[in-house]
Amino acid sequence: MLIVQKYGGTSVANAERVFNVAKRVKSYYDEGNSVIVVVSAQGDTTDDLIEKAKEINDKPSKREMDVLLSTGEQISMSLLAMALEKLGAPVISLTGWQAGMLTNSNHGNARIKKIDSERILRELDQSKIVIVAGFQGINKYDDITTLGRGGSDTSAVALAAAVGADLCQIYTDVRGVFTTDPRIVPNASKLDDISFDEMVELASLGANVLHNRSVELAKKFNIELEVLSSLEYERGTIVKGVKQVEKMLVRGVARDNDVARITIKNLDDEPGAAFKLFSLLAKKNINVDIILQTLGSDGKQDISFTVPESSLESAVETLNDNLSEFGAEKILFDKNVSKVSIVGAGMASNPGVAAKMFEALYSANINILMISTSEIKISVLVEQSLAEAAVREIHDKFGLADL
Amino acid sequence: MLIVQKYGGTSVANAERVFNVAKRVKSYYDEGNSVIVVVSAQGDTTDDLIEKAKEINDKPSKREMDVLLSTGEQISMSLLAMALEKLGAPVISLTGWQAGMLTNSNHGNARIKKIDSERILRELDQSKIVIVAGFQGINKYDDITTLGRGGSDTSAVALAAAVGADLCQIYTDVRGVFTTDPRIVPNASKLDDISFDEMVELASLGANVLHNRSVELAKKFNIELEVLSSLEYERGTIVKGVKQVEKMLVRGVARDNDVARITIKNLDDEPGAAFKLFSLLAKKNINVDIILQTLGSDGKQDISFTVPESSLESAVETLNDNLSEFGAEKILFDKNVSKVSIVGAGMASNPGVAAKMFEALYSANINILMISTSEIKISVLVEQSLAEAAVREIHDKFGLADL
Repeated sequence: MLIVQKYGGTSVANAERVFNVAKRVKSYYDEGNSVIVVVSAQGDTTDDLIEKAKEINDKPSKREMDVLLSTGEQISMSLLAMALEKLGAPVISLTGWQAGMLTNSNHGNARIKKIDSERILRELDQSKIVIVAGFQGINKYDDITTLGRGGSDTSAVALAAAVGADLCQIYTDVRGVFTTDPRIVPNASKLDDISFDEMVELASLGANVLHNRSVELAKKFNIELEVLSSLEYERGTIVKGVKQVEKMLVRGVARDNDVARITIKNLDDEPGAAFKLFSLLAKKNINVDIILQTLGSDGKQDISFTVPESSLESAVETLNDNLSEFGAEKILFDKNVSKVSIVGAGMASNPGVAAKMFEALYSANINILMISTSEIKISVLVEQSLAEAAVREIHDKFGLADL
Repeated sequence: MLIVQKYGGTSVANAERVFNVAKRVKSYYDEGNSVIVVVSAQGDTTDDLIEKAKEINDKPSKREMDVLLSTGEQISMSLLAMALEKLGAPVISLTGWQAGMLTNSNHGNARIKKIDSERILRELDQSKIVIVAGFQGINKYDDITTLGRGGSDTSAVALAAAVGADLCQIYTDVRGVFTTDPRIVPNASKLDDISFDEMVELASLGANVLHNRSVELAKKFNIELEVLSSLEYERGTIVKGVKQVEKMLVRGVARDNDVARITIKNLDDEPGAAFKLFSLLAKKNINVDIILQTLGSDGKQDISFTVPESSLESAVETLNDNLSEFGAEKILFDKNVSKVSIVGAGMASNPGVAAKMFEALYSANINILMISTSEIKISVLVEQSLAEAAVREIHDKFGLADL
């Protein structure tokens, strides 16, 4: 088999863990597999480098920031190579540019455009374990780029697609994908498998296991992923195309605290007002999620919507600057809200699911502030202090514990 | 003017010093010069990285070691670029491979074969300050290489040659080249200028200001160097072709403690014995320096020579393994010796110079163990405990203080 394995920063945080990873890699290699390993920077390295930069310049150019940050993966990949050398395995480490990871020029958040995998394949042909720096690439000017959040996962999946890997394993510090966050619900169940679409929803709803971009890429190229722990030896969760996934109506419950609600009072109730409003936010790259409009009266209406909490300041500023354009009076906002969602592929054709979710919340006396639904998810906005209780109630109601 | 400036590790050891360097670079740029800056890794970074490697593998491959160590310069170059951005100067940093530093494949001690300066020149054309990582390059396989000791000096001189720079400034933590080590002789004089040849001798004799490779390269391409302090604003020492150098018989006194003497007793006194002996050492890459043969008697002779102290163990081992071949009886060695040398271009045609040096040692009661001379230097081997006194006596005798 041709396997791509990705190890995150906690998996290679110190010399001992680097050796653990090396042993695991070697065990796959010794079984006759071809192995490509994608590594992140060790533990806090990236944060330390950011700190170093801030001491000098609080707003460095993104190009130079990428030059700086890309050293983190270069360090960890060489150390992992040295550990494998120590174990007697033939190995070579490659930076993003050496591995042919070609990206666009969006420094700090670049997208992979193409992987020129010639060098990697040549090294594999020579029976070497190939270690590739995650999170980084080069653009057409030969400048170093980084891929932004979840970048190493994306590197791994893109590499798996480029070389036609049989399996792409994402090693992390959890044992797989759970029906909900085990820190909230201790008897949450680990899923054996989950579809790409369900995983995307869970990821974007705050499950924090795999980054969305990597799952979307895996779906696009139909690369089977396995999410598993680098600290234990057990099967993780397989993320794959929908057909093979076991049938279960609700797959997981997610909670997302990175959300804020904005309400605009007394907006002109005329065609185009909402369009103008959301265009303004789109121009500032602010994602609007759940939207709720009141019925108008006296030619005025209220409109509420959610944005990521990190975008709140910028959103409010933008709106205030343009308030008069909509004839609006004032803007209210609330950071103390959370989004709680259930995800499952079979949901759309089962109207009872939503009712069951709302019933769970009602019986726990949790007020629903906003609702949004899609083909495979139902999200509600609740007070942040009640979000964990909401997750527990819903998780319990759908019988997801100890599956 | 097109200027190449090189800053060593102590010059960029922390955020404050990085800013000092940035200000100096900007002042040259603001005067209308084109500036290329070569940087070393910050302070102890390289040692820290070596330590990290040793935790994992005490004998890592040199290829992976180069991958690891080259991150040091990549970090410092990006930080310096950020500091210049903060000061409002247009700037770009380039790694060894981005700057076109092509080397052979001798990992850990690579030689620059060619510099493809297209990218650098393009950035200079756009009025940017160009920062280049010292000490590193790539070989023809696109693997990262490092240049070994004194590598950043070599990078700077090679770059200066490639782009046809008007001046190459080597910033360090001393104010220039002195007539001798100011820690030994406090009133040693800073030289205004010195020839390449004299500088090579001083460097190889333990003056520790510029690495030999860089001076030899500067001589080959006739690149004028200036050695100066990054902590002060004053003229340093110009190192240049011999014709412009002021006439002074003795330019400096050097001391080298990294030397050991080996004596082989009762070697066969026949043609080829010495040849066989030194061939053996050459095969082990051991540099033999001063050689002294006694006159033979009874078909036997003694032979003494010096080697770098770091090569002593290997030399003694090699010789012991082959002792019988030379009919020799035993090997003696002595690490408590130092080489004290005077350097000056006009020396060869002035026989009085040697006599004056020996007189200085005689009047201080310092015994000369061995002597060696060349066109521009005279070296003597003395007991290590007397070496500093020897330097002071000679420095004084030639009137080199407070020039």
